[in-house]
Amino acid sequence: MKKHPADSKPSDSPEEQVAGNGLLHRRTLLTGGAMGIVGSGLGIGTTGAAAEQLVEPPWGLQIGEDTPPYQTPSKFAKNVVRSLANPKFEPRSSLSRTPHHMLEGTTTPNGLHFTINHTGVPDVDPAVHRLLIHGMVKRPQVFTLDALLRYPLTSAPAFVECGGNSAPLFSPKPIQDTVQALHGLSSCAEWTGVKLSILLDECGVDPKAKWFIAEGADGPHLMRSIPAAKAFDDAMIALYQNGEPLMPGNGFPMRLLLPGYEGNMNVKFLRRLKFVPSPAMSFWESQVYTEPMPQGKSYNFNFLNEVKSFITRPSHGHALQQPGIYEISGIAYSGRGKIAKVMVSADGGKSWAEAALQGPVQPKAFTRFRMPWRWSGGPTILQSRAWDDHGAFQPTRAEFVAARGQLDSEPPVTAFRNHHCNVITSWAVSSQGKVTHAYA
Amino acid sequence: MKKHPADSKPSDSPEEQVAGNGLLHRRTLLTGGAMGIVGSGLGIGTTGAAAEQLVEPPWGLQIGEDTPPYQTPSKFAKNVVRSLANPKFEPRSSLSRTPHHMLEGTTTPNGLHFTINHTGVPDVDPAVHRLLIHGMVKRPQVFTLDALLRYPLTSAPAFVECGGNSAPLFSPKPIQDTVQALHGLSSCAEWTGVKLSILLDECGVDPKAKWFIAEGADGPHLMRSIPAAKAFDDAMIALYQNGEPLMPGNGFPMRLLLPGYEGNMNVKFLRRLKFVPSPAMSFWESQVYTEPMPQGKSYNFNFLNEVKSFITRPSHGHALQQPGIYEISGIAYSGRGKIAKVMVSADGGKSWAEAALQGPVQPKAFTRFRMPWRWSGGPTILQSRAWDDHGAFQPTRAEFVAARGQLDSEPPVTAFRNHHCNVITSWAVSSQGKVTHAYA
Repeated sequence: MKKHPADSKPSDSPEEQVAGNGLLHRRTLLTGGAMGIVGSGLGIGTTGAAAEQLVEPPWGLQIGEDTPPYQTPSKFAKNVVRSLANPKFEPRSSLSRTPHHMLEGTTTPNGLHFTINHTGVPDVDPAVHRLLIHGMVKRPQVFTLDALLRYPLTSAPAFVECGGNSAPLFSPKPIQDTVQALHGLSSCAEWTGVKLSILLDECGVDPKAKWFIAEGADGPHLMRSIPAAKAFDDAMIALYQNGEPLMPGNGFPMRLLLPGYEGNMNVKFLRRLKFVPSPAMSFWESQVYTEPMPQGKSYNFNFLNEVKSFITRPSHGHALQQPGIYEISGIAYSGRGKIAKVMVSADGGKSWAEAALQGPVQPKAFTRFRMPWRWSGGPTILQSRAWDDHGAFQPTRAEFVAARGQLDSEPPVTAFRNHHCNVITSWAVSSQGKVTHAYA
Repeated sequence: MKKHPADSKPSDSPEEQVAGNGLLHRRTLLTGGAMGIVGSGLGIGTTGAAAEQLVEPPWGLQIGEDTPPYQTPSKFAKNVVRSLANPKFEPRSSLSRTPHHMLEGTTTPNGLHFTINHTGVPDVDPAVHRLLIHGMVKRPQVFTLDALLRYPLTSAPAFVECGGNSAPLFSPKPIQDTVQALHGLSSCAEWTGVKLSILLDECGVDPKAKWFIAEGADGPHLMRSIPAAKAFDDAMIALYQNGEPLMPGNGFPMRLLLPGYEGNMNVKFLRRLKFVPSPAMSFWESQVYTEPMPQGKSYNFNFLNEVKSFITRPSHGHALQQPGIYEISGIAYSGRGKIAKVMVSADGGKSWAEAALQGPVQPKAFTRFRMPWRWSGGPTILQSRAWDDHGAFQPTRAEFVAARGQLDSEPPVTAFRNHHCNVITSWAVSSQGKVTHAYA
């Protein structure tokens, strides 16, 4: 068996500890025999006479349901849905958040991808919809959906994250809510579409055009200014989401995808790209996404979603039923590139160990991290901290507040005016196994 | 610019041809400037005065729709659904097929994953459901869903394919139907669950148990015998599909996943794994999936889904509106491992060129291949042929029929009694641009 750096530490159990308070070697259970824990009584499965009592369930004795053309989740998974910030559809923005605490893996299914729409979800007819590229270009062009489908397509997983995701952590006290409420404005899908650079090669962009303005076809004609360099880098006109046409709330029939840039810039229902010499200073970039700092100054054009991670299981609202083995599982991602490592602590940051990353790790996409943990039954704090391949890493909340400030009082979870928070998230585990949000 | 092997061939246009009848270098358009085709008038987008006429569509002038907790496709994508082989839910098996001709990328979204259920879709309550591992094991154990969630999980994309997928190509004449009808019993998702080997380490399997029997909890208690070696290799108890709990038709709350093995063995609603010395010779393995050969002999235990590919766009039912540039796009996969290469022909097999593969190429998962093509407007035949990293490759239909036979007459598409067909699929393009199924 290959030696691990942690092997040099003293180990007080056959389950090799890699950091304080029960964090176990990432190969624990994965190589059960080699770790000497075969038959050690992990106490997870039920053994003995009870095991053999195979009861016939009702669904084994009757005919089931019809097969629908488009399948949707089990009625027993009815809580695995997005939370709605505007459930009565009042005249304001509608936000829906991804239930990370009930999901796994690296893909957000299309039904559960977060959405923010400002005048509802437009019902765009793809046969009528057009995309215009104009401004400082030699040959302005209009593209139908059918025309775009004749170009070479490309597919890549990419997270999309609202600049306001995680903003509840600007609150001076830890808001007691789920990872869905705190970090649910971030999702990851496999997007397929046309690289924007291909279309721009045909249009012939004037080198003096340093920016372009992207505009949506929905009610507010949501408009953002984007550096032209991004257009020639990895920008995509996305047409498919996890294989099928885009979801209505995610920009059907086409959206701009700017991997790593804040969600609002990934303009949905995309109808226009205009190449210009300087930014438009639109409502969204000058008002909404201009971020205040403690000194009375503001950030502007803070586009990049920095490296972030959070533990999804266990997390706020979960309950550990009894002491014993659990898996700590979470999501990490960075707008700069790939996740390089994720460290996990089970003792409030006193000691850390490196989590296993689910490969292949892809740039600007969700990376699942996992670590086995034996909960002793005592109270503690669980944390994760991610590094990306550019050397960037998550700040502690104290470090972040020193640089960016926090709010004076605890507002409702939907009313935050600041953005791009990527602090370490902490979950407190009580001696009863109750998991809550904490600052540590 | 890096030289490509095809660079040594004579090229009669700035769009470098790599095989006969308009197959273009894979970098065509991707490096438009370098290929010398900037502004060459590809004729896909609309230019000139018409381009600048930006009409205000109705959805830009009104409030849109409410945001649902679980989003579903646009009403304009209402045809992007599974086709149902038993739409009236009569007392027989219910099949639904994936609409590959309307999808892209490598992921099958959960709504569109193919399903086959024999007594409808059972409504399994995960709080009641149990998984029993017993037979020739030291410690029989029962696992609840909650117990399984405490084990280390793993995620991987994997295709699942019915052994009967592509069976319509046993017909002596090419059945005129879509790629959905011909190859729609194959889908690919990111599955997350517990590696079966972890649970077996705890149960202590007797080395004399060379097989195990997997049984489902649905009406027919679908039962298959599986070599024990597969259990210790890459078998998984899958709990999540593209991030969310399994879909009802795909085995909620847990299924056996045997990457690369025929779909029927990936037992859904999994309730029991019994370790035994020899196969059970159940209905499904002795009757349904015993494949006849021309000599009057039969295959038995032909588990592996061999290497396959098919072009999804353009494919049967599509129409090319005018001569010009198109992308040929398709899916390839192999139950043995990774796709090594896909060759494409636009002249009925006279010449071939290597398609671009969307990376990262993952084992036992869909790999998207793509190739640019300039359609001259003449009639022709499009084909794809895949190789895997074990050196296996698709046979021509003639080679396959010589070994495996074909049917004497043309039956209805749902009534094939043979399996594991992986021949090259051919699409005929007429001079009017109509695409139909052909044998070539």
